[in-house]
Amino acid sequence: MEIQGKSWQTIWLVNDTHVEVIDQTQLPHNFKIKKLIDVQDFFWAIKNMVVRGAPLIGVTGAYGLAFSIKSDASDANLNKNKILLESSRPTAVNLKWALDRVFKKIHNLNQEDRFFAALKEAQIIEKEDIKMCSEIGENGLEVLENIYKEKLKKETNCSLNILTHCNAGWLATVDWGTALAPIYKAVRHGIKLHVWVDETRPRNQGASLTAYELKSEGISHSVVVDNAGGFLMQNNMVDVVIVGSDRTTSTGDVCNKIGTYLKALAAKENNIPFYVALPISTIDWDLEDGVKTIPIEERSAEEVKYISGIDINGEVKKVQILPKGCNSYNPAFDVTPAKYVTGLITEKGICRPDKISLKSLYFG
Amino acid sequence: MEIQGKSWQTIWLVNDTHVEVIDQTQLPHNFKIKKLIDVQDFFWAIKNMVVRGAPLIGVTGAYGLAFSIKSDASDANLNKNKILLESSRPTAVNLKWALDRVFKKIHNLNQEDRFFAALKEAQIIEKEDIKMCSEIGENGLEVLENIYKEKLKKETNCSLNILTHCNAGWLATVDWGTALAPIYKAVRHGIKLHVWVDETRPRNQGASLTAYELKSEGISHSVVVDNAGGFLMQNNMVDVVIVGSDRTTSTGDVCNKIGTYLKALAAKENNIPFYVALPISTIDWDLEDGVKTIPIEERSAEEVKYISGIDINGEVKKVQILPKGCNSYNPAFDVTPAKYVTGLITEKGICRPDKISLKSLYFG
Repeated sequence: MEIQGKSWQTIWLVNDTHVEVIDQTQLPHNFKIKKLIDVQDFFWAIKNMVVRGAPLIGVTGAYGLAFSIKSDASDANLNKNKILLESSRPTAVNLKWALDRVFKKIHNLNQEDRFFAALKEAQIIEKEDIKMCSEIGENGLEVLENIYKEKLKKETNCSLNILTHCNAGWLATVDWGTALAPIYKAVRHGIKLHVWVDETRPRNQGASLTAYELKSEGISHSVVVDNAGGFLMQNNMVDVVIVGSDRTTSTGDVCNKIGTYLKALAAKENNIPFYVALPISTIDWDLEDGVKTIPIEERSAEEVKYISGIDINGEVKKVQILPKGCNSYNPAFDVTPAKYVTGLITEKGICRPDKISLKSLYFG
Repeated sequence: MEIQGKSWQTIWLVNDTHVEVIDQTQLPHNFKIKKLIDVQDFFWAIKNMVVRGAPLIGVTGAYGLAFSIKSDASDANLNKNKILLESSRPTAVNLKWALDRVFKKIHNLNQEDRFFAALKEAQIIEKEDIKMCSEIGENGLEVLENIYKEKLKKETNCSLNILTHCNAGWLATVDWGTALAPIYKAVRHGIKLHVWVDETRPRNQGASLTAYELKSEGISHSVVVDNAGGFLMQNNMVDVVIVGSDRTTSTGDVCNKIGTYLKALAAKENNIPFYVALPISTIDWDLEDGVKTIPIEERSAEEVKYISGIDINGEVKKVQILPKGCNSYNPAFDVTPAKYVTGLITEKGICRPDKISLKSLYFG
């Protein structure tokens, strides 16, 4: 996608010598590129959130494992570095999956072939991620086109108003993103649209990353506080909601960033379609009742207590927004039951959020 | 109410010489008292939000008009200062009401009697406000007691979990507050409770003022981001919601701080009682459909773009949280239709949110 008129991915390989990534710790206030050369660089890039988002972390890990054996492809070094990279974000399922995949591809090879084979596998994972997101985008484009066509029948020259929560954009993947991919495709398809960007407290991924992505692509948008979505929907200012998903049950319950559920309730109440864009890989086929079974991560209360921004001198500063001695509580996700979800947009197509539809999409 | 172990009002008269107020521009990070002596002091205190909240602004205006004629109680000076004070917050209905009330009481009196008569009227308005809030508290206490008794039947030694949005506390009134008054009364009545405090973006009145009030009173609380309420309700962590109201229609639709509607939807969905505490004076008897008829103030986009907090040196600093060049939109209120409201808690009693119940409460 574009930043300052130039096309970027979040990660790319440079001449078999190193990898470059957009330093996401600097966003949205500064755009900087970071070189990753040895395994320590990759380890810290994942650990310190220079790269973020499950798909991007996976690709970074895969490249990390490749470069970690460039000068020493022995079993001992390979095993040691795989464990090291896994430990950079122990809860990231996608990271472990990518490392395992590269490992399996190379551990039976001769040592001299391992580096290039690993590099090739990392590139394949990278390309697959781009393709998957692009397909989610194409499938979501259909949804948006249909809603836009209906709107145009009632109102000429109108914009399609889309609300999104958190950041399920290209910065969390290699390119395109998940929930934002249909929006990027729609703009390229000539659909006139406006995006309401939920701020997404407490980590403000909407206000910072989604807004940054949309601004950089020149797409019409307004950041709104998370409180505003109900008002917008009640007043016919939203035509469709699209969000991402961290984990989806086999019955279509969606676990996503805290606050998603409130928007789904308001959408249902106001007859506004509510779509979830997700890679099939985030479906947990073993789970049924999401509210009862998906454990919700409680993150540090400090995320509610402090906030960062740029001060009058353009420097990033952290300030405390809660009064001294006040307590806070910080659940990071919530579960939106399937009954509030209009449809799931995946790389394999769109389906209703129920077991039969999901299974027939996946298996048949 | 208490701050640092001492009992306070937001405003109080000192020996017929001046008035003192808590400087709310310094809260929650600093507690400071400000003296108001001449009319300019009162004008700026209202204009610069040293005092805030409709009831408190009214009382401040009333005292301001009294002190404005202390040394010159001529008609000319009285009229001039009334106009000046009205202009300090032109949209505050309660300010105009209080100024008119003092004016009517004194404008037919001899000049030498006017100052003390005005001062007396301001004191009466002050006392009436305290009494009204206290009565809202007593009536709301009944609601909380009943819910708590039911909970105790199922669970011994439990806490009553209350969620509130924005600040409808004593800092917006002279004492007690509206939505928080029942909580203060309940604690004094021995009810064990915990308050979930919605941060209330973008102006963070919950995270700053409500949290500050509760902490100062030693009441168990946790600030949560506005996104979290749905999760809390879905997981049986909220027993009752109480919020305030800026304006209520004759049919019980409630216009309150943006985000209230989302909480009402979640409460309804999860069978949690949703109460609104309000002075009868905020009912607009001419209005019926709140969503269609109540104009919603759009406030500056800057409120979404910037946030203030204290930096590492304890100084209040403003930082920019949106990327450069991104847009924002800032509607300040929303309307919660009566069907999501369990009951209205007023100084005259509790009633269902419908025309017949409201009229019989008020007129009968």
